[in-house]
Amino acid sequence: MAPTPDWVKQLKPSGPQGHELLAAERAKSDLPVEQLSELLFTKEVLQKKQRILNVLKSEKVFDKSQNYFSGRTDRFEKALARAKKLRNLRVKHNWDLDEYRTATELISEPGPYGLHDSMFLITLREQGTPEQHEVFLKKAKNYEYIGCYAQTELGHGSNVRGLETTATWNSKDKTFTIHSPHLTASKWWIGSLGRTANHAVVMAQLIIAGKSYGPHPFVVQIRDLKTHEPLENAHVGDIGPKFGYNTMDNGFLLFNHYKAPHVSMLARFSKVDPDTNKYARQGSPSLIYGTLTWVRSTIVMQAGSVLARGVTIATRYSAIRRQFQDRDAPQGEKGENPVINYTMVQMRLLPLLAATFALHFTGKAMMDLYSENQKQMNQGNKGREDPNQRGAGPEETQSGSDILADLHATSCGLKALSSTIAAEGLEMCRRTCGGHGYSSFSGIGPWYADYLPTITWEGDNYMLTQQVARYLLKSARSVLANQAPNNDTTRILTDFRSRSEIGCAFDIIGSDSDIVSAFAWRASFLTFEALKHRDEQKKPWNDLLVDFYRLSKAHSQYMVVKNFHSALTAEETRGGIAGETLDVLRKLYRLYALHTLEQEGSEFYVSGACSRNQISLARTNAVMKLLKAIRPHAVRLVDAWAFDDWVLDSSLGRKDGKVYEDMFYRASELNPLNRITVDPYPDSEVLFKRIEGRGEGVRSKL
Amino acid sequence: MAPTPDWVKQLKPSGPQGHELLAAERAKSDLPVEQLSELLFTKEVLQKKQRILNVLKSEKVFDKSQNYFSGRTDRFEKALARAKKLRNLRVKHNWDLDEYRTATELISEPGPYGLHDSMFLITLREQGTPEQHEVFLKKAKNYEYIGCYAQTELGHGSNVRGLETTATWNSKDKTFTIHSPHLTASKWWIGSLGRTANHAVVMAQLIIAGKSYGPHPFVVQIRDLKTHEPLENAHVGDIGPKFGYNTMDNGFLLFNHYKAPHVSMLARFSKVDPDTNKYARQGSPSLIYGTLTWVRSTIVMQAGSVLARGVTIATRYSAIRRQFQDRDAPQGEKGENPVINYTMVQMRLLPLLAATFALHFTGKAMMDLYSENQKQMNQGNKGREDPNQRGAGPEETQSGSDILADLHATSCGLKALSSTIAAEGLEMCRRTCGGHGYSSFSGIGPWYADYLPTITWEGDNYMLTQQVARYLLKSARSVLANQAPNNDTTRILTDFRSRSEIGCAFDIIGSDSDIVSAFAWRASFLTFEALKHRDEQKKPWNDLLVDFYRLSKAHSQYMVVKNFHSALTAEETRGGIAGETLDVLRKLYRLYALHTLEQEGSEFYVSGACSRNQISLARTNAVMKLLKAIRPHAVRLVDAWAFDDWVLDSSLGRKDGKVYEDMFYRASELNPLNRITVDPYPDSEVLFKRIEGRGEGVRSKL
Repeated sequence: MAPTPDWVKQLKPSGPQGHELLAAERAKSDLPVEQLSELLFTKEVLQKKQRILNVLKSEKVFDKSQNYFSGRTDRFEKALARAKKLRNLRVKHNWDLDEYRTATELISEPGPYGLHDSMFLITLREQGTPEQHEVFLKKAKNYEYIGCYAQTELGHGSNVRGLETTATWNSKDKTFTIHSPHLTASKWWIGSLGRTANHAVVMAQLIIAGKSYGPHPFVVQIRDLKTHEPLENAHVGDIGPKFGYNTMDNGFLLFNHYKAPHVSMLARFSKVDPDTNKYARQGSPSLIYGTLTWVRSTIVMQAGSVLARGVTIATRYSAIRRQFQDRDAPQGEKGENPVINYTMVQMRLLPLLAATFALHFTGKAMMDLYSENQKQMNQGNKGREDPNQRGAGPEETQSGSDILADLHATSCGLKALSSTIAAEGLEMCRRTCGGHGYSSFSGIGPWYADYLPTITWEGDNYMLTQQVARYLLKSARSVLANQAPNNDTTRILTDFRSRSEIGCAFDIIGSDSDIVSAFAWRASFLTFEALKHRDEQKKPWNDLLVDFYRLSKAHSQYMVVKNFHSALTAEETRGGIAGETLDVLRKLYRLYALHTLEQEGSEFYVSGACSRNQISLARTNAVMKLLKAIRPHAVRLVDAWAFDDWVLDSSLGRKDGKVYEDMFYRASELNPLNRITVDPYPDSEVLFKRIEGRGEGVRSKL
Repeated sequence: MAPTPDWVKQLKPSGPQGHELLAAERAKSDLPVEQLSELLFTKEVLQKKQRILNVLKSEKVFDKSQNYFSGRTDRFEKALARAKKLRNLRVKHNWDLDEYRTATELISEPGPYGLHDSMFLITLREQGTPEQHEVFLKKAKNYEYIGCYAQTELGHGSNVRGLETTATWNSKDKTFTIHSPHLTASKWWIGSLGRTANHAVVMAQLIIAGKSYGPHPFVVQIRDLKTHEPLENAHVGDIGPKFGYNTMDNGFLLFNHYKAPHVSMLARFSKVDPDTNKYARQGSPSLIYGTLTWVRSTIVMQAGSVLARGVTIATRYSAIRRQFQDRDAPQGEKGENPVINYTMVQMRLLPLLAATFALHFTGKAMMDLYSENQKQMNQGNKGREDPNQRGAGPEETQSGSDILADLHATSCGLKALSSTIAAEGLEMCRRTCGGHGYSSFSGIGPWYADYLPTITWEGDNYMLTQQVARYLLKSARSVLANQAPNNDTTRILTDFRSRSEIGCAFDIIGSDSDIVSAFAWRASFLTFEALKHRDEQKKPWNDLLVDFYRLSKAHSQYMVVKNFHSALTAEETRGGIAGETLDVLRKLYRLYALHTLEQEGSEFYVSGACSRNQISLARTNAVMKLLKAIRPHAVRLVDAWAFDDWVLDSSLGRKDGKVYEDMFYRASELNPLNRITVDPYPDSEVLFKRIEGRGEGVRSKL
């Protein structure tokens, strides 16, 4: 197409400019943005981010300008180039793991080294023997071996026990035969496997002398180290395009009686003795399940900032996008109204803004709980059993460590709740941007699409709720038997029991802590209801799944409300920030809690946690007042999340408000489709008259 | 990559095969699938679909095998080629508009001729004079002129009055000067404009002698008919990639004092007299607004089948996907459980299955209402005012035609509700497919992404609710003043008033018609509540937007429940189908209604529409029973929607259940990414060792 003509380049948006409108918004509040950012991240972390960001911006390979235009193959090729460069930068600048992760986060796209950097290395380290560290880990750390973690199969997701891939011990030549007996045994969804990895940790059913010992991890080479072609009897490739995550090469892998040496079975916790051909377990794998719990905790922590990206974009744009006049505005008053002034927009946006802080503080608390757990583990109090395997196990399995059980259950429920809030919140943010939210330039859609797997992986959000319910039922039973371990869950259950005769009277409108109590009451009520169904009425487990889902949601919502509240009452917080800031955060707390309460109204009513009158007051009155009170601080509150424009990569979310200039620039200057001139007439056989800029000349006939 | 080895080709999925599992499902029920299909579509329509489908399948250009892999540019190029072929097929087979639309639907992707075929031709026909039909419409029908409808601007969505583009009348040379005074005046989101159209209907503010007469339509040539390059002083192009809809070239358009002849202003309803230079209105444009209402009605109708695609895919796959054993299953029982047996899956899927029928029958009823309206219009009872413009108008504007007002309000509310149900339902279906739902091969994600704009266009779903509320308030006022026109809305409001003293007692568990009454009661209650806030408490309009949103939702849910119920009691339905079929449909009706009621529980309780006891019974008891009762018919019910595999283009939704074979085939054989071999090592500077199948040799260095 012709270059953008000068008369176009001279055009400005009409009316008040974006930067003026955002300036006006920022002038409405004197919230100390930097101070709030430091409360969220600490000064050190913010400086580190900035330092790394500058390095990334200076590298051409990280230029994002074509990201939204490129197809799958180009996206992947570029992502691999970036992964390589990132690795080299890490070496060059001597970044530690944390700095390396920060860089990955700033680039904000899944990369082909993703699973090598995480699960592959972690598994080698935690499940390998010193000998295996020599053989595999060293080369893996040097990226001579690039690996992935191959567990999920085409026909088997969450249920690890159902895996079909077998590893049969050959006592004669002391090898394992790795084999895929069926098509459904094909490893599937394995990140970094499709095109990148030359090794894989393969989870396979160990078979010795015809007896199966369940799934075990094997380190298997799958591609030639020179040609990078698949080895014989290993069929491997990329599984194809996805809703998002297309910079990652999720792969498939099939084995045809593939021979692997004895050393390939990771043997820290269980091994096959090559002399006796006997299987032996040693030590406890519970640390690993600690790791999985840790992964879930990070998901909770991330959910807040994941959602904050969408909220930042939608909030800034809602202050710039103007539509209609306030129908009650005086006749004289000209000009359209920024949509953020409409209560319907506030009702969609501000509770999500509140949720970003709620999830952040909850995630922080989870992390503390996790380190607390690690400490105890290292003091020798170790679990003996994998909570993640319980899906198919007996209901009453005893957990080796109460803290692990408690943390595990909490992390399951909060992972499910927080990732659902983040994913659905992002889509809500996108819609709140109106038509332009649908453009890739909004930056929300692609981000949402890449985030979506989080609600399915590390435990499907619906499946996980069963583990929460199971834990709550168990706790309730221990309370009834007066054998309750002392933790928060048993405390609220005991509390509820003790008041079962007298009921409760929480003032959810007047008291912040009463709100927490009301959430605890409703969760406890649902717990004992479910227990009645299961233990007294002996209802089938399957008939209770819906109740369990609601129960898990209720308990996790209580956890979020409780953690948000304690964060605001904690000394460190109160000390760190000005009174007015704390006051706004308290309003956000109330908005999050009461908006949630109002949405779950009937459960709060049925449980007697609060009166119908207060529920409708919360709905029609309190929430609307909070929206009004928070609205002037909205833009400064999202500013506090401190996203750099380069990170957001969004026309609508630009910090300087140049929304329309940026959208137009991307469409008119960067859009490759505009370099094609087509022949639009149906009677002509040719599709193209000519194509500029692609050097391909006239195109083939139809 | 190497071709798929033989040992892979010989592999089968483990356990019972997909076709066996689906056969077992179909054997669980003796629902007469064909008969039900004919009830939904009629035999004639089904035969027509099949006839056209055969034509499309025989044309190479419609081959879908690369759709999920191609990038934006390839998708668009292919879509244009298809649009051309489709036009030629229409001529060749002499298809009428209906058959042509059916073909477009079967192809299931937006095409570059989309806006030419609809809004461009419709606007020329309905707003052009006979002379203008000569000048423009003839050539447009022959695709010599290919057009689009350019209304929305970069800075202005729903509010047509805010448009910035001007058309200034030049009395001297009898021309209009079309001009874009600001960047925000750029036309934006205009379908078919980006690369395809050579003409556009441009909505611009008409200015005569310095006075503005509001937005009017102008037919403007924008590209050269030979070179297809933009004309001077017109800057036009594609607006870039979107969340979906990437086979369509939504475009932008700016004018620089562009001269257009007098004939270009579509003059059926208003014109500028070239001699007197005076502006004159004539006749009524209300027919056009009838058209817009019609578009909304079709959206309601489509919402059912749009959702049915996702439900078909998710239901069939849930019968094939097996996970874990029922934890209460006897120890001996081996094998994993198809997930459709889990109540948590049924709870997500079956209410959506019920919704597909609810929306279908509601849409059908809307269409009848529309033709009724058209009849009355043609009998000269015409509206004098555009309901779509009311957003910014005074609240109390009188509508010229009560039937138009009623139909308009109903279509607004139902468009918002039905498209939201369809969009969110599709995403729910995708998630219900677990991990594989995220693969493009599921067929749900791409379909969902293409459908999403529907919740924003033809009236943003949130904006529309204001028009519904305005209408309901008006109706309530007329009831209070005993001046109510006789229609269903005023009937339920009057009914509610008459019982305000005595209240109600609806048996929602025992009586199908009482359910309808309960929905009517709740909607009426909310209407008079809102009226109190507005008229007595004089609350600002903006403070009531959230209430209005809930009110519109409540009234539209009542409409759906009512229409579904009447469809099942209507003679034509009862006559057409077997008793058992009708019984299953009644269960679907109850499931849809009670599931909705349970979700809106607090409103039903607060309004007194039903007792708390019945609401919790509906929740814990009735709904669960209905899930059990409907579950055996699930697969046959989706079969009745009669989607051809070619149309679904989904591995998970295949009618023959060959889910895993199809996923594997697409990944291993069709996936172009697998033709690339990369150099994965960070220390090497080269990205590719070699590339097969793309004939591009070694790639550039990083």
